[in-house]
Amino acid sequence: MEIKQGKFLAQINSPADLKQFDEKQLAQICEDLREYIVDHVSIYGGHFGASLGVVELTVALHYVFNTPVDQLVWDVGHQAYGHKILTGRKSRFHTNRLYGGISGFPKRSESEYDTFGVGHSSTSISAALGMAFASDHKGEKDKHHIAVIGDGAMTGGMAFEAMNHAGDSNKNLLIILNDNCMSIDPNVGALKDYLTDITTSHTYNKIRDDVWKVLGKISKFGPNAREIVSSIENSIKSLVLKQSNLFESLNLRYFGPVDGHDVNHLVHVLKDLKDIPGPKILHCVTVKGKGYELAEKDQTKWHAPGKFDKITGEIRKSVPVEPQAPKYQEVFGHTIVELAEQNEKIMGVTPAMPSGSSMNIMMKAMPERAFDVGIAEQHAVTFSAGLATQGMVPFCNIYSTFMQRAFDQVIHDVAIQKLPVVFCLDRAGVAGADGPTHHGAYDLAYMRCIPNMIVAAPMNEQELRNMMYSASEAGAPYSIRYPRGKGVMPDWRTPLEKIITGQGRKLQDGDDLAILSIGHIGNYATKAQEQLQLEGVSAAHYDMRFAKPLDEQLLHEVFEKHQRVITVEDGCLPGGFGSAIVEFMADHGYSAQVTRLGIPDRIVEHGEQDELYHECGYDAEAILAAALKLMSEKAAV
Amino acid sequence: MEIKQGKFLAQINSPADLKQFDEKQLAQICEDLREYIVDHVSIYGGHFGASLGVVELTVALHYVFNTPVDQLVWDVGHQAYGHKILTGRKSRFHTNRLYGGISGFPKRSESEYDTFGVGHSSTSISAALGMAFASDHKGEKDKHHIAVIGDGAMTGGMAFEAMNHAGDSNKNLLIILNDNCMSIDPNVGALKDYLTDITTSHTYNKIRDDVWKVLGKISKFGPNAREIVSSIENSIKSLVLKQSNLFESLNLRYFGPVDGHDVNHLVHVLKDLKDIPGPKILHCVTVKGKGYELAEKDQTKWHAPGKFDKITGEIRKSVPVEPQAPKYQEVFGHTIVELAEQNEKIMGVTPAMPSGSSMNIMMKAMPERAFDVGIAEQHAVTFSAGLATQGMVPFCNIYSTFMQRAFDQVIHDVAIQKLPVVFCLDRAGVAGADGPTHHGAYDLAYMRCIPNMIVAAPMNEQELRNMMYSASEAGAPYSIRYPRGKGVMPDWRTPLEKIITGQGRKLQDGDDLAILSIGHIGNYATKAQEQLQLEGVSAAHYDMRFAKPLDEQLLHEVFEKHQRVITVEDGCLPGGFGSAIVEFMADHGYSAQVTRLGIPDRIVEHGEQDELYHECGYDAEAILAAALKLMSEKAAV
Repeated sequence: MEIKQGKFLAQINSPADLKQFDEKQLAQICEDLREYIVDHVSIYGGHFGASLGVVELTVALHYVFNTPVDQLVWDVGHQAYGHKILTGRKSRFHTNRLYGGISGFPKRSESEYDTFGVGHSSTSISAALGMAFASDHKGEKDKHHIAVIGDGAMTGGMAFEAMNHAGDSNKNLLIILNDNCMSIDPNVGALKDYLTDITTSHTYNKIRDDVWKVLGKISKFGPNAREIVSSIENSIKSLVLKQSNLFESLNLRYFGPVDGHDVNHLVHVLKDLKDIPGPKILHCVTVKGKGYELAEKDQTKWHAPGKFDKITGEIRKSVPVEPQAPKYQEVFGHTIVELAEQNEKIMGVTPAMPSGSSMNIMMKAMPERAFDVGIAEQHAVTFSAGLATQGMVPFCNIYSTFMQRAFDQVIHDVAIQKLPVVFCLDRAGVAGADGPTHHGAYDLAYMRCIPNMIVAAPMNEQELRNMMYSASEAGAPYSIRYPRGKGVMPDWRTPLEKIITGQGRKLQDGDDLAILSIGHIGNYATKAQEQLQLEGVSAAHYDMRFAKPLDEQLLHEVFEKHQRVITVEDGCLPGGFGSAIVEFMADHGYSAQVTRLGIPDRIVEHGEQDELYHECGYDAEAILAAALKLMSEKAAV
Repeated sequence: MEIKQGKFLAQINSPADLKQFDEKQLAQICEDLREYIVDHVSIYGGHFGASLGVVELTVALHYVFNTPVDQLVWDVGHQAYGHKILTGRKSRFHTNRLYGGISGFPKRSESEYDTFGVGHSSTSISAALGMAFASDHKGEKDKHHIAVIGDGAMTGGMAFEAMNHAGDSNKNLLIILNDNCMSIDPNVGALKDYLTDITTSHTYNKIRDDVWKVLGKISKFGPNAREIVSSIENSIKSLVLKQSNLFESLNLRYFGPVDGHDVNHLVHVLKDLKDIPGPKILHCVTVKGKGYELAEKDQTKWHAPGKFDKITGEIRKSVPVEPQAPKYQEVFGHTIVELAEQNEKIMGVTPAMPSGSSMNIMMKAMPERAFDVGIAEQHAVTFSAGLATQGMVPFCNIYSTFMQRAFDQVIHDVAIQKLPVVFCLDRAGVAGADGPTHHGAYDLAYMRCIPNMIVAAPMNEQELRNMMYSASEAGAPYSIRYPRGKGVMPDWRTPLEKIITGQGRKLQDGDDLAILSIGHIGNYATKAQEQLQLEGVSAAHYDMRFAKPLDEQLLHEVFEKHQRVITVEDGCLPGGFGSAIVEFMADHGYSAQVTRLGIPDRIVEHGEQDELYHECGYDAEAILAAALKLMSEKAAV
């Protein structure tokens, strides 16, 4: 479907085109761009509010700076739709986030304007600073390096690490703090309050103004007061303008706050900043969802609303014809409350994903026992460890891909001390349209190598509930991984039952081969097994449930009986679940033909989950094919 | 050897004993404790400067607070010797860091006074805050939670994440900033300068004083000036005392700076702070190595000097009888300079380990091309990725155990984008006396699961040099892991030769079995192979060099010939090198009896490296035993 373009936007396919326009026309260009994004997302879906919030900033940056020579790094990248549209990808924008289409995030392989691939938060300052050091080394003195980072991302520790380094350098770095008080959910933490203080003038601006006013009054005392004024000016002026600011404390020259929706003012400020060398920060206040009223009002809902009716704001939902299974996220959210009602020790921790993880259900039901700690996965894990030392049983819910950021804390603060923290790894396996930065591909491998860690994955809602219950009483580090999206049980509110740690289950007996699966993907193995039966192949199917500890008793049964085994996991092949199985074989002297199915050892791009299961070769069809191939090899032996 | 105790210290075996003394006697107790630490470390070795720097703080904390009910968390833990001596471990202190002895770090399983196990930096605030939330939940309103954290550790991002959360809470948390301007090497970054500014009065204190002085002058203008004074006071006072401080920006009440070596003043301040609820920070200025003049003067050298003559300060070194092989660290340090002299693109990055990694050699030789970025592993990796986007070839040297903290950045910023960053993973394998928090046990497993990552380990100095050279021209993410300490080649300055990525080498032909090793531990395999020969067993030995990509050609040769295979690695068994080998077998339908030797799937405690190789069963003796066992099973077949 062709989307109408405003008259100016229709003429713009690159920053060079944009630069042909007069400054007076920029506001209209912003209107055009905003309209285009609204139209697009309403029809095709995608991230919404973040890009609307930076329309003016995007236009101003490409207008003022010499991209792509000047290096522009977007933090996280949800907000880069305008950037993509202005940098040569307008005609492909309808493929955004689709299998085979352009990425929803900046991506180096897609455009020279995408200087750094993003997706996870808080990386932009480090990356841009590295670029600035390199430019310096190459003698490119006039090159600019710009990191655009939200106030949410600013709470991620590595942003602070980078500022500590940047402030100590003399490199040409401009940090633009895009302050909209939001991550996906409203931001939390002391930094947010501080930025609000600055912005709303309650302290910083007011005091700054007051001081000037007072100095004015003092000077009325005439010549006698000159010495005082001078003295007070020298001391206080520098204090107010320099010392009083968090960022100036880190030796970053601070400018702002400025209105991020006044494109002409932004252009002037950015032009001025171009001439100021060294590391500096521009505090830019924006509104997430700006220009689309509903999105401004409910920013969490409109972070990535799906397709919607542009006029009414009604979000389009497919109408289910039969009872639908819930999302694993909902099951998690309701079950933790159910468990916490029975067990005073249970607490909930999420790093900035209350709605995504459904921890918001517990935060609402028991606000004193469930916490959003901000974009701060490292802190979330060690904070949980601290809770556990005092007898609590924290459920720390982190997306699989983001748990990578707290890998050390899982080892160092939880596993070594054998503290009973329960990790719920959401979005495990291929994540879908968010693509390679968001796939939860590695957790089975990186959790499995950690001593004392129990590594579990439920095949359905009931198992998730039972694992959560079992984990709460296990007294040891326990990780439970489950995918994004729907399970398989419309009637999921089953009674809680204990699962013995490391105990798998046989779903189906069989004679010709055995399929060993872990987690939700096991449902595809079930389909394959049923199809195999129709084709005359008798396949056993085991839901192993645990990648660690393995159910050795069950595995002895498997390998004593079967010479053909298929392992299936929605996770990376090197070091993963199938790897654990072949380690078991080697350790116990079994030989069998084993086909390991899972995410191959390469970067898997974005697409719907089912498309990626298929591409990676572990959907029902692929499992079936692998089984038939194994059987044919059997014939050949 | 019995160490003399001062008369007061001799009476103290617990904080309860300490509390019996009068405040006037605390200075003498500090003297006793300091002397005891000096005597101890001079005879037995260990960390030195850090504990001397916090003698007064340690005494004051245990004197004022009700430990272990009040929760005291030491960050990193190098500095906790005094704490250990005062809390019941004096009589065992001579076993510090020895195999089977007490740990050099706080450790929960060792004492109830060790509230949280540490070793890695910047975890203390998160842990103490978790404890504070738990106490609150349990209704323990009067309990105190204290994190003692150095200014170096404060640059680690998770400390900032924790402060952002703490400042937004009303929990009873006291952060003690132990500001000594040092990590192991001098601290770097903007924060350090800021703290120095505060401390040295050049800005903060001076301005604060000036303001009061000026206000005093204005008041002399008489009643007319009252309004002005009042106005200026209201605005500026809060500004100076509140807004002007980095920590106050995060809503932490800031106190200090105070002299960390005045024990009586510390006691008074801490008593006052006990009565102030909510999150707060005490800025305490100390000198690393305080009281031992040589250590104060050369703080890096005296961080952990080994055994020394207390009087002369001469550090005891064993005199080598034959030419000694260099440390891998030295080989790294000299080789990167050699490579960088030939290749303008090469840069060096270390997060706060210039001397430990020997990156200081390049920092001295080429200060514009080698950087210490502070305790900031995450930033170090993404900063390196930023450098690489501009055509540089950064060598990012991080201890294996600390690289865990940048796992996400390795995946997200380097591997997905296939950027040519070379990771040199120092202290890979068991680390020795530093123990479980410092063992580089997991890197083969966690690096191997990352797409695009080359995973290499040299068997000797020459291979390290050649791998570094090859990595600098590989154009892809490349990790090289090597152990702490000495290699095997006294004449190590060999000409640089390219190693083809993924190519192993056969060291020894053999008929009865094959040993596949990776890295330095291969030298133990060589010894085992020689011993086997004496016992009539013909063992082949392959130095595989790469855990990824595997040398498939060589492995086909191995498995076509051999039915008995031993894999040897100085790394964890789950998911590691041996796991890669059995994956290869499964994928290619080979069957063989395989014994995997490496770090078992449990927490390995501290001890000398050779002691731990032995305990874990992969020193020469253990490899020999495993081979003989395999051979005997052969006989049984």
